[in-house]
Amino acid sequence: MGWAIALHGGAGDIPRSLSPDRHLPREAALRHCLQLGVSALQSHAHPLDVVELVVRELENHPQFNAGKGSVLTTDGTVEMEACIMDGKTMRCGAVSGLTTVVNAVSVARLVMDKTPHIYLGFQGAEAFAREHGLETVDPSHFITPGNIERLKQAKEANRVQIDYTQPIKQDEKSEVLAANGGSGDSQIGTVGCVAVDRDGNLATATSTGGLVNKMVGRIGDTPVIGAGTYANSYCAVSATGRGEAVIRATVARDVAALMEYKGLSLQEAAAYVVGERVPQGTAGLVAVSASGEVTMPFNTTGMFRACATEDGYTEIGIWPTEQE
Amino acid sequence: MGWAIALHGGAGDIPRSLSPDRHLPREAALRHCLQLGVSALQSHAHPLDVVELVVRELENHPQFNAGKGSVLTTDGTVEMEACIMDGKTMRCGAVSGLTTVVNAVSVARLVMDKTPHIYLGFQGAEAFAREHGLETVDPSHFITPGNIERLKQAKEANRVQIDYTQPIKQDEKSEVLAANGGSGDSQIGTVGCVAVDRDGNLATATSTGGLVNKMVGRIGDTPVIGAGTYANSYCAVSATGRGEAVIRATVARDVAALMEYKGLSLQEAAAYVVGERVPQGTAGLVAVSASGEVTMPFNTTGMFRACATEDGYTEIGIWPTEQE
Repeated sequence: MGWAIALHGGAGDIPRSLSPDRHLPREAALRHCLQLGVSALQSHAHPLDVVELVVRELENHPQFNAGKGSVLTTDGTVEMEACIMDGKTMRCGAVSGLTTVVNAVSVARLVMDKTPHIYLGFQGAEAFAREHGLETVDPSHFITPGNIERLKQAKEANRVQIDYTQPIKQDEKSEVLAANGGSGDSQIGTVGCVAVDRDGNLATATSTGGLVNKMVGRIGDTPVIGAGTYANSYCAVSATGRGEAVIRATVARDVAALMEYKGLSLQEAAAYVVGERVPQGTAGLVAVSASGEVTMPFNTTGMFRACATEDGYTEIGIWPTEQE
Repeated sequence: MGWAIALHGGAGDIPRSLSPDRHLPREAALRHCLQLGVSALQSHAHPLDVVELVVRELENHPQFNAGKGSVLTTDGTVEMEACIMDGKTMRCGAVSGLTTVVNAVSVARLVMDKTPHIYLGFQGAEAFAREHGLETVDPSHFITPGNIERLKQAKEANRVQIDYTQPIKQDEKSEVLAANGGSGDSQIGTVGCVAVDRDGNLATATSTGGLVNKMVGRIGDTPVIGAGTYANSYCAVSATGRGEAVIRATVARDVAALMEYKGLSLQEAAAYVVGERVPQGTAGLVAVSASGEVTMPFNTTGMFRACATEDGYTEIGIWPTEQE
């Protein structure tokens, strides 16, 4: 038994040909956030505080689809969602439809800590965050040039684009995006973190901007307890991918349910859910167990991910490793 | 194997001393809605259409906490939620924060049928319903005198009142409520219906106004797939009670997960979830299995409920039966 931490920056169709100037900054961000979480765990911070800290940092990074960098709705607006859950007490908090709050995950934490409710949405969530003095900015703060271009592409193709798909048209548009600093590869995604300490305290948090070109008001899997985010006394899970597939398969709860009701190990449970319960190419997750195991399976081309355990194992990656 | 149907009008602290003029109209409504569903099943309607039909009728009944009759937020407004799910395809739809739509469950059905998403909230959900021509009314339509009084009581007691609790002050206020036709007993609640046909097609739907004196923007268990509402190829479940407890315990998914992962029968699975996974006094559910079994457990004082099966069994009740 020791502490363990895992985090993700989303799963999706990430081409192996992705140029280094696209993925290296994201890998650096994952490395930085991992180190932040490891230091906190080494300082005996509670896993709940650790996952909030790490997800805040990921939200602030404009190349991930959460906080600054969130993808745009069909109206060109940002609607952010987040969720946090404590494994031991099963206390949890969630928010949807935030438009001005810098760190959605901290609103979710406040909903958990300061209200009799679990989940607040849209104007009520915004008002609550302001009442509690959380940092807010003009909605334009969150909007990046890359996401304006992504929305334009999605509208031209008349479809809802998952945050991770490749550019819809592999033509000169990609060059334009590359030139203006945007990410034609759409290699940004939902962020999340799970952590466990030496005492087996588990926690999880997830944050997202959702889908490119999503309908106004669309709620995905991230804030849905049991879908994108779940923790109990067995494990903590944060999932990413096509939200609708993750909701239907209650991905995060099912990892825990397979451990609890079927006696599977963390790795077996997570592999089964990602391998058998969601369509190929749609989902990934990071998870830790009470005894400090870590797993990061995905059935997409890649998943931005990082993990570390007290016994010295560290992994930072995008595509499958050779063993996988 | 035969068809089966079960429905509920909420679970809670329903005193045995409830006067007949309070519960008889609700029992009559349950009976009427049950008959409606039975007729539809006998006419070979698809269970998805059956549960939508029945829940619409329950929403229109002002003594239940859904549609007309929805309880009020702390601002005195109505914010309605609903969810629908098909067991075979696991397609589903959900909505939160509706303020003008007469039948929230039909918006959930449209989200399922007409969008690439599962879940729409608040203004986006309202706009979507209007675009599709669903019936809307002034928000005042939904507000009943009983619910204005309930909110007043809750505010005086400075607490969030679950839709089913008894009046907070058992004094002359109850007399006032009785006199003005209100329901001092707060005996109204979330509504839901589950159905299965002879071919084992399963469906579920749930609809609610939420909690008395809830914060604006509060989302409960009803629209959360796996919490208040869930169906797959094993069973269909609609839960009711304290939303936060139901979310934490992923009540509806766990009934199905216990059947699938642990081999329990419908009755065993539902009894375990209601008996062991949620605090006493907080929840109830109705469920049917693919083979036509029905169960309606609750750990509250009572639950407005009704069921019927093709082989002729019918039950309409509020308090535990003697066998229970």
